[in-house]
Amino acid sequence: MRAVAAIGIGQTKVDEHWDKSLKELAGDAIFAAVQDCGIDHIDGVYVGNMLSASANRQQNLGAYITDWIGAKNVGALRLESACSSGSAAFRAAFLAVASGEVDIALAVGVEKMTDSPSGEITASLATAASADWEADQGLSFVALNALLMQRYIYETSWKHRDFANFSINAHANAMHNPYARFHMPLTEEKFVNAAMICDPINLMDSSPIGDGAAAIILVPAERVSGKIIRVVGSAAATDTIAVHDRKHPTWLSAAERSSKTAYAQAGISPQDIDFFEYHDAFTIMAALSLEACGFAERGKGPQLALDGAIRLDGALPVATMGGLKARGHPVGATGMYQLVEVIEQLRGTAGENQLDKAHIGMAQNIGGSGSNIITHILRND
Amino acid sequence: MRAVAAIGIGQTKVDEHWDKSLKELAGDAIFAAVQDCGIDHIDGVYVGNMLSASANRQQNLGAYITDWIGAKNVGALRLESACSSGSAAFRAAFLAVASGEVDIALAVGVEKMTDSPSGEITASLATAASADWEADQGLSFVALNALLMQRYIYETSWKHRDFANFSINAHANAMHNPYARFHMPLTEEKFVNAAMICDPINLMDSSPIGDGAAAIILVPAERVSGKIIRVVGSAAATDTIAVHDRKHPTWLSAAERSSKTAYAQAGISPQDIDFFEYHDAFTIMAALSLEACGFAERGKGPQLALDGAIRLDGALPVATMGGLKARGHPVGATGMYQLVEVIEQLRGTAGENQLDKAHIGMAQNIGGSGSNIITHILRND
Repeated sequence: MRAVAAIGIGQTKVDEHWDKSLKELAGDAIFAAVQDCGIDHIDGVYVGNMLSASANRQQNLGAYITDWIGAKNVGALRLESACSSGSAAFRAAFLAVASGEVDIALAVGVEKMTDSPSGEITASLATAASADWEADQGLSFVALNALLMQRYIYETSWKHRDFANFSINAHANAMHNPYARFHMPLTEEKFVNAAMICDPINLMDSSPIGDGAAAIILVPAERVSGKIIRVVGSAAATDTIAVHDRKHPTWLSAAERSSKTAYAQAGISPQDIDFFEYHDAFTIMAALSLEACGFAERGKGPQLALDGAIRLDGALPVATMGGLKARGHPVGATGMYQLVEVIEQLRGTAGENQLDKAHIGMAQNIGGSGSNIITHILRND
Repeated sequence: MRAVAAIGIGQTKVDEHWDKSLKELAGDAIFAAVQDCGIDHIDGVYVGNMLSASANRQQNLGAYITDWIGAKNVGALRLESACSSGSAAFRAAFLAVASGEVDIALAVGVEKMTDSPSGEITASLATAASADWEADQGLSFVALNALLMQRYIYETSWKHRDFANFSINAHANAMHNPYARFHMPLTEEKFVNAAMICDPINLMDSSPIGDGAAAIILVPAERVSGKIIRVVGSAAATDTIAVHDRKHPTWLSAAERSSKTAYAQAGISPQDIDFFEYHDAFTIMAALSLEACGFAERGKGPQLALDGAIRLDGALPVATMGGLKARGHPVGATGMYQLVEVIEQLRGTAGENQLDKAHIGMAQNIGGSGSNIITHILRND
């Protein structure tokens, strides 16, 4: 397959965009990406979205968004894999270019969640879990993650307070990201005293929902001259849809599998990753991701937060623009935000948050309670 | 890209399957397809579905179905483009094999519609149209098609009765298809006297919804010995999401575009197509498809039905196993049913409905009111 380069990026602020429709949000991100790279047409459109059927009463987003941006008559698809829908769209666009099917692919993730009553959104988010064994029994997504965190704390003897730095780091990094939903520093005291949501997960363990869109333009690498951002790893893996069906519920086997495949594609090992945009929907997911991807030993994920290794000046910076926790988690768009942020770092345009060493970046997007995980590795040359 | 062959097919009867869940339906089709070709593993799963978020409160179908069939840890995706979701899944599977990304791809379309109140299904189907300009104004899908049919009759001076043979042919062909929802012959008298749904569309212009699943296994053609069914054309195109935004509402430009691309890929012209599994959700769509794909002159589609050209013994057999009209239209699965039926004909296993000449078959799947159209051409060698 052909080498693929990311040449254009665009994003909207994650926020409550009551004045913008779903297509306007997507369009804002797309037009920014198009302007960023100056292309004059698009050959294929790949849309990541999870909730529009219920939250916006609009499906068929491939045609809907392609129509809105005036790219009539190109092929267009919507990809859905719950909260990893964004990177599913990126992966489809990547494969379309890599295979030679299209020359200029547009991937966009979009989600508009804040127009709907929160109870409806909670119920819709639960469609990512097993309807039969989880959602219909009353388990919301935060409840599933709370069970995982309870189990993890029981198995490892970490305390809830030990997860504080995951959120503190995310909030610190979001301070300088104009597209982040939150611009407020977090302290350990605020973290431990935050309102309880579902024991042991409190408000400061949890990422906020939001409206937003992020877009990336991909082309064959051979068409790019000068500095180039390459997609060197792209892999997806699944696990059981219901958490209780897993032999080891606190091990994200699909994260392990997809990251190992991506490392092999890129010809690298975890030690070569300069920074990691992980899927910190809840602090427990941050810890589990670090372990499954080979950055921490099993049961030792929180140590990286306690040590400060995850900070911008640490050995493995994570959530460098705020992560899901503080940039926000517009679910079907999140994977695209992560990838846009990786590209900002690789370009050296991450502003106040720019890393000194940003040569190889990884983004990992988790759908369901770890049931559909997609990992990408990008490199600048 | 590599040549791709279809080696396994499976389908369930289109029916009211109140005793089967969404995953059981999908599993039945998948296990039939696996048994059909005797593979021992799957490398990638591509699921076409439109309505599960609302009708089944289950999304994340890539992981959900992959888990159910025991193919843990492979990459899996759900594709959605309204009523063309089925062939979107097939196209994704085809591209995955063609590109070399996977060696054994499973495409499955599944929809379970009959557990929900029909008003809910009608509202959910309307999410394929423009929420802003069509659905939220009260236009259901049948209403949109009725407006198109009114306009077409006004432009062409055909009478409603002239569309009868589209439905009569479909019902005749379904008589010998055990997987079809309807096994009842239709006469012109029954057609013209059927209950009015939305003038001029009556019950016998309309395809029935249903529950069902259909699956196909794709592999590189080089791995197949002996008789082989190749995918020689695969193309998608979009049009405006709202019908009123089209300069010529009665011309399916995305059907024209995607079929022309597919003809070019296959190195053929419309005259080389031996049979056509078209998207006869309503009789008006049958006529418009024949015209846009080059089988009839503009405004002359119904002539092919009046002449009998569309029958099994005609010049261009269509809906050879009953079409959407009589096999049934489980929306997100329909595209996969069409392709399974093409493969049955190309294999020579279409039973009583077997065509004498079935060397090149075409399937076309329409999402929205023509907003997202996907065309495939398959050939036996």
